Amino acid sequence: MSSLHFNTKTFNKEKILLANTEEYIIRGGHHLFPILPKAFAGIGQIGVIGWSSQGSAQAQNLRDSLMGTDIKVKIGLRENSTSIPLAQKAGFTTDDGTLGEMYEVLSSSQLSILLISDAAQANNIERIFESLCPGSTLGLSHGFLLGYLKSIGKDFPKNINVIAVCPKGMGLSVRRLYEQGKEVNGAGINSSFAIHQDINGKATDYALGWSIAIGSPVTFKTTLEEEYKSDIFGEKGVLLGAVHGIVESLYRWFIGQGFSKESAFIKSVESLTGPITKLISQKGILSVYEFLNKTDQEAFKKAYSAAYHPAFEILMEIYDDVASGSEIKSVIEAEHRHQRYPMKNIDGTQMWQVGASVRAKRQPENIAVNPITAGIYIATMMAQVDLLREKGHSYSEIANESIIESVDSLNPYMHHKGIAFMVDNCSITARLGARKWASRFDYILYQQAFTTLDSNLSIDQELFDQFLTHKIHQVLSVCAKLRPSVDISIVG
Amino acid sequence: MSSLHFNTKTFNKEKILLANTEEYIIRGGHHLFPILPKAFAGIGQIGVIGWSSQGSAQAQNLRDSLMGTDIKVKIGLRENSTSIPLAQKAGFTTDDGTLGEMYEVLSSSQLSILLISDAAQANNIERIFESLCPGSTLGLSHGFLLGYLKSIGKDFPKNINVIAVCPKGMGLSVRRLYEQGKEVNGAGINSSFAIHQDINGKATDYALGWSIAIGSPVTFKTTLEEEYKSDIFGEKGVLLGAVHGIVESLYRWFIGQGFSKESAFIKSVESLTGPITKLISQKGILSVYEFLNKTDQEAFKKAYSAAYHPAFEILMEIYDDVASGSEIKSVIEAEHRHQRYPMKNIDGTQMWQVGASVRAKRQPENIAVNPITAGIYIATMMAQVDLLREKGHSYSEIANESIIESVDSLNPYMHHKGIAFMVDNCSITARLGARKWASRFDYILYQQAFTTLDSNLSIDQELFDQFLTHKIHQVLSVCAKLRPSVDISIVG
Repeated sequence: MSSLHFNTKTFNKEKILLANTEEYIIRGGHHLFPILPKAFAGIGQIGVIGWSSQGSAQAQNLRDSLMGTDIKVKIGLRENSTSIPLAQKAGFTTDDGTLGEMYEVLSSSQLSILLISDAAQANNIERIFESLCPGSTLGLSHGFLLGYLKSIGKDFPKNINVIAVCPKGMGLSVRRLYEQGKEVNGAGINSSFAIHQDINGKATDYALGWSIAIGSPVTFKTTLEEEYKSDIFGEKGVLLGAVHGIVESLYRWFIGQGFSKESAFIKSVESLTGPITKLISQKGILSVYEFLNKTDQEAFKKAYSAAYHPAFEILMEIYDDVASGSEIKSVIEAEHRHQRYPMKNIDGTQMWQVGASVRAKRQPENIAVNPITAGIYIATMMAQVDLLREKGHSYSEIANESIIESVDSLNPYMHHKGIAFMVDNCSITARLGARKWASRFDYILYQQAFTTLDSNLSIDQELFDQFLTHKIHQVLSVCAKLRPSVDISIVG
Repeated sequence: MSSLHFNTKTFNKEKILLANTEEYIIRGGHHLFPILPKAFAGIGQIGVIGWSSQGSAQAQNLRDSLMGTDIKVKIGLRENSTSIPLAQKAGFTTDDGTLGEMYEVLSSSQLSILLISDAAQANNIERIFESLCPGSTLGLSHGFLLGYLKSIGKDFPKNINVIAVCPKGMGLSVRRLYEQGKEVNGAGINSSFAIHQDINGKATDYALGWSIAIGSPVTFKTTLEEEYKSDIFGEKGVLLGAVHGIVESLYRWFIGQGFSKESAFIKSVESLTGPITKLISQKGILSVYEFLNKTDQEAFKKAYSAAYHPAFEILMEIYDDVASGSEIKSVIEAEHRHQRYPMKNIDGTQMWQVGASVRAKRQPENIAVNPITAGIYIATMMAQVDLLREKGHSYSEIANESIIESVDSLNPYMHHKGIAFMVDNCSITARLGARKWASRFDYILYQQAFTTLDSNLSIDQELFDQFLTHKIHQVLSVCAKLRPSVDISIVG
């Protein structure tokens, strides 16, 4: 993976060894903010286009990190955008020149970070490209646009830098951990970065400066192509889609076993987003298995054995659909369908109603690690890790896109407000993908994993030994040492 | 739709009026078999490639219809195909020259009917095209291959006729009703036909002769493009995928209402594939509503109002995915995935286990028309009718692809052996599509239709009035008069 090498004159590159593979990273931290102007040499204005979850988080972090420098952060929004008051409330105003119309901001910025929705990017791409100044830099936070351009046989303009910084967590966590990072230096969401076009030799430092300014404790390199595959794939997989489908099928299965609705919800959702997530976040994946008593370890093994292959099968299909461009095409077409049928919420079903009342009277100490839930969830996570490795992704990308983003960013929010709420309130692309694939995970687990479990078939010892000795455990332990362990403190 | 006009010197074209639109059809019947040699002028051998459900049915019907003529029907199979003994058992043997290796049969036939699986067509298409004699005719039974060729930017060879005859029912029914047609002249499965390339002016008579020879009571014209869209769409919709998803969600909902497993199965699956199907088949869609008492009519209206829009939304997505080529790409990719993970059955879940025991002790007179099941099923059917009309399909195609094929061919088999059995035993393309989309119908109905029902929201009277006065009712009544009403007698 020679494309993952990089050089920087501004920051200290560090070599790490992940599963016997050398990778290079940059560590972040608030102490590096004074050298940001050097990294951003030639940039007087950073335009952040869109007040999405990522847009609002990154814009505020950038502004705070660049406080006292000559670099201005300016928000660009559509005229009459309903986000204008929200941006104003966060301190971006037309009066002081930090808020403007999006195409004006695009044409006046030396670095334009495009954080409007994927469909909006696709539908307005010609005018966006026309607005960019020759020699300026276009910043993306995931690779969707490359996938879209490829699907219609087009490309980026040749006279600009194209870079990406892709936080491995949702915008809310990017902002919240940045704030916590003021006390615990280095707290934050890891990011990958990609240099797709570098016309002036400055693209790498721009990307690294951007990543450090938004608070990434660790920044690792990827390519825009690897990124869009792993990112769009990941959110349909264990980050969101799979988790949704797993708990729906588990809830039904526990009820079929005779448990009450409340009890079924606690054994599935509460266990997954609570103690299982916390154990993985703090001590790695294996710790969940090691935490169980002998009887529960056997149950975990059975669930793992039953779920790994069905989950792998659906994950393969997702990866194929993403790589072939079908998923991207589908997102663009959905935008047209939504003009007729706006997307509705998924949280109205009985299960999520039960969930709301369970959360209201939650006593964290009463939520146990359920071995079946843990086995099925972790089998899906491991299937995702194995598939991404087969497809040639780096361990940094795999660990962040399959595990760290889940347990450090998304699952804690799901624990706070429910998985259905999370699905209903993420980006349109993620929302569409989660809704589509959750049902597939649900059906295949119900048809194959639970029927195997119910028939009490034996453990797949070879598969389980692969889990016990998997290289990902060393990778995670290296990643864990690269930044402080901070429990995200969720507000709102 | 001028492309739907056609001329034949051999058969009698008949004009029918469907919802004030003129369409032309050819009626079939065993009495027409003596003029088949005239229709097939120039054809000495018809090669039927593949012993699929359609392959075995069409080959036997063709052979029986052409008995006593000079036209030979010859089966072409891969060397070492496991179907060889099955073809032999049906009377096709190498000894009498009616069974051979597929490429040899392709190159020696004047009409080659390609009935191997879609993925096998795609994977071997170059050698298949090379084997066809210039001036010969390629016959298809649905438009998948056109969709595939378009998706890879290729086309049919220019020196052959390309025609299609597409029975609107599965192979088993095509054979079974043909046999019943010996007693009730005209019993059979309707077919559409398409003339994609006509290099010698004989293509139309070849297609009509083929359709009459396999026993189609009514043959109507379409284009290969319209056909693949409506066909691949239809089997993911109300023919198979939607029905599977509808009953899964209904079963769960009835259980949630406190009914026993057996009772929930009877109210959902048994009611749908039993009396609801029979009423529609014999007296049209409206008859189901009219059959209900006042209280049940209100329940039907509520279920219809709740389900129509969510069903329409998923159907739009299916149509988009089919039209864009994504679904076709997905079938080809699935073939590669299946080498690692062969498709497993869906019928192992508790619901289908319950179903087997319910069927074993079935008393038909105890199966009622459940108004909720009927409302949701018919709303989905009507959404499919409306979407196909919006997309410009002819009423013949719509009625056959959304209603007649369901109630006259597929549902009776489902009633006999279960919907899950049907899904597990149809073509790979249909099986993939049904598995994928059933879960989507299930989720959207559960999240939107049932939550609406449970909250007892009011009836959408405007939507319901559109149902009551819909043009499809006249279309169905015309279609019903075009052929004898025969209850398919299912054996095996």
